[in-house]
Amino acid sequence: MMAHILSTGDEVLLGDIIDTNSAFLCTALKELGIKVQKITAVGDELDTLASNIVDISLQTDLCFVTGGLGPTRDDLTSVACSKASGQALELNVTALASMQSYFEKRGFKFTKDNEKQAMLPLTSKMLVNHNGTAPGFYMKINQCLFFFMPGVPSEMKLMFEQEIKKVLVTEFDLNEDILIERLTVFGLPESKVGSLLNGFDMNFFGMRLGFKADFPVIEVKIILSVTFQNRYKADSDMAVAKKWVVAQLENKVVSDQGLTLAQEVGRLLTQQKKTLAIAESCTGGLISNMVTDVAGSSDYFLFSAVTYSNEAKMNVLNVQKKTILEHGAVHEKTALEMAQGARLKAGADFAISTTGIAGPGGGTDDKPVGMVCIGLAGPSFAKAKTYRFSFEDRFKNKQMFAMTALERLRRHLVSLAKTA
Amino acid sequence: MMAHILSTGDEVLLGDIIDTNSAFLCTALKELGIKVQKITAVGDELDTLASNIVDISLQTDLCFVTGGLGPTRDDLTSVACSKASGQALELNVTALASMQSYFEKRGFKFTKDNEKQAMLPLTSKMLVNHNGTAPGFYMKINQCLFFFMPGVPSEMKLMFEQEIKKVLVTEFDLNEDILIERLTVFGLPESKVGSLLNGFDMNFFGMRLGFKADFPVIEVKIILSVTFQNRYKADSDMAVAKKWVVAQLENKVVSDQGLTLAQEVGRLLTQQKKTLAIAESCTGGLISNMVTDVAGSSDYFLFSAVTYSNEAKMNVLNVQKKTILEHGAVHEKTALEMAQGARLKAGADFAISTTGIAGPGGGTDDKPVGMVCIGLAGPSFAKAKTYRFSFEDRFKNKQMFAMTALERLRRHLVSLAKTA
Repeated sequence: MMAHILSTGDEVLLGDIIDTNSAFLCTALKELGIKVQKITAVGDELDTLASNIVDISLQTDLCFVTGGLGPTRDDLTSVACSKASGQALELNVTALASMQSYFEKRGFKFTKDNEKQAMLPLTSKMLVNHNGTAPGFYMKINQCLFFFMPGVPSEMKLMFEQEIKKVLVTEFDLNEDILIERLTVFGLPESKVGSLLNGFDMNFFGMRLGFKADFPVIEVKIILSVTFQNRYKADSDMAVAKKWVVAQLENKVVSDQGLTLAQEVGRLLTQQKKTLAIAESCTGGLISNMVTDVAGSSDYFLFSAVTYSNEAKMNVLNVQKKTILEHGAVHEKTALEMAQGARLKAGADFAISTTGIAGPGGGTDDKPVGMVCIGLAGPSFAKAKTYRFSFEDRFKNKQMFAMTALERLRRHLVSLAKTA
Repeated sequence: MMAHILSTGDEVLLGDIIDTNSAFLCTALKELGIKVQKITAVGDELDTLASNIVDISLQTDLCFVTGGLGPTRDDLTSVACSKASGQALELNVTALASMQSYFEKRGFKFTKDNEKQAMLPLTSKMLVNHNGTAPGFYMKINQCLFFFMPGVPSEMKLMFEQEIKKVLVTEFDLNEDILIERLTVFGLPESKVGSLLNGFDMNFFGMRLGFKADFPVIEVKIILSVTFQNRYKADSDMAVAKKWVVAQLENKVVSDQGLTLAQEVGRLLTQQKKTLAIAESCTGGLISNMVTDVAGSSDYFLFSAVTYSNEAKMNVLNVQKKTILEHGAVHEKTALEMAQGARLKAGADFAISTTGIAGPGGGTDDKPVGMVCIGLAGPSFAKAKTYRFSFEDRFKNKQMFAMTALERLRRHLVSLAKTA
């Protein structure tokens, strides 16, 4: 089952709004086993709309159109649809009734402009808009079944969920489905991930890999189309493929459930009933922000000290004045004392710390931009290590520093789980 | 000048990412006076890519392609381009050299897979990627000039700004020069901003407004096309228009220089030679992260305590046990003591604090999700205020809380500057 999405409206082509509707539809359709092969966005121009509808009606089975159902002059979808299908528009009494009741309920005045919204192509069936005035509709044009929806995301989503899904399931035998597994990979460039997985296509016929680089993380997707032939062994095939991919990428797979690094660290801390404190200098609160983006993080995250000034490092984390005078703020010994200080201050089981040079300024020959010392302290130990990254970009450095610190903790927690 | 945008990648059609690249390009091209007539998104499938490139090459003058330049197997753009243009791929030495230097700088290992990225169609010209490994390129196919860019937004944007703009201005007679002023607005919904500025078109002929909502901030752009007629008075016209817009939006304009709120706060602190400390609970480090995203923030930002646990609030910030027992962690009195504690601990001139319910869990009837108490402490005062926002979304709440705290500080600093 192949689908096309047609997003209409000048505001999209002018860059005034980002088309989130299409992403929503792609995900929702994927879950129904319907594959979107193309998304098109065009402006509010009658002939363009009509010709695009005709082209699509000859190319694919399903099309989902958003926008252009409103009461204003630039809302041309139903007219374009009538032009493309050669069907006259007539007043759809069901649509009119549902609009009038919607207006009554809210005490709005029903105008002639609104009546225009109830003019639908002859053979079309109306789709109720539970969240706004513009009714939607669906109809077959040539070989393709078209669904016309409002452009307002909240209205479109509700119409899809409550009206269109039913139609799809009844009209079609939706047997094809897609299995997707997501792996979160950190610590390898995309090219390296690709080359490590080179053998995949030969080993796993009918499956493919997708890569999404979201710096500094790479998401590897294993995609399997469930067909009539493979439907019984699909899950086991996926399991085998996943095992193979994880083995190729070794310990660089942060989560084989598609969790973020912060989510995975949170999962491990919860599982092991441990708590966390953080001491940040160059990452400036980014680690804490990542950790607290996870709902429920208050169960294990106690405290973070963002100590930018040396005084704060000493006053809050009890970093020794001697240490800073002898070695400077960016040094493994400082990182070590920061982690120990944060851990004690918060009474936490573990603490991680960062001190380094995020740039663009502040670098020296022996302490260049991109250098960071990361500390890790636990019940019976404390250690620190220096890393050097080579980004000039302040944001990229903060990201790399923060992720590397969390990754150190993750690996420690994993090793604990193994030895336990 | 008509343009087409072709966005490639399975991740778009699978709904895994929202295509923000196209919106960026639409806006950037509009500013150059180039109108986008169509956006198309297709997956990583060689024949589909090639046939779409051919179709577009016969329909329009300009096409901007994003994605598919990476080193992995699902990166097929250059191959598709060669198929569509009938031109062989050959190793582009300039591309190879620039990639190798990029790798050297960062101490990455240059692999065979990366070399693939330097294989470009014969007559194509390379476009430098200042922010990643994949070089872009541009070439004419039939009547259309194609620009091929990476899909990673940060890389794509930089390539467009620093490489492609030059080409467009020289290759085409883009006689129209454009003046743009950016205003950062916080505290109003986009619809309200729009209606407040309704009179603009009537008052300022030949100028137009652009709006970009980047939650929770709205960027208002004033765009003036410099023509032969108005070139002498363009600057003064812009000044008048800007003054009018600022007046309409009153104190909701955070910066009339397009600075972020954190940058503007940093600018004011530097100007007034003051220092800042922060105490965060529900914002979990987000404020500190925003503040330290500004290069040079170490000049005024001293310390932030992310005190998630009550113990941390008491131990680190000297919040009174009595206060928490009587009023709870989410209360103006707690926020007040947090701000005072952070200020004293760091020896800072000012401190801001947040304590609230970010959600999705943890809300009660009298302390619902979206409620936050924000404290502000200075040399001779300390105050706290409660705000209620109505988002269920944890990220949106953290954003609103953090921005509202920074905005309180900004307004205080502005009032000081006025009275000084």
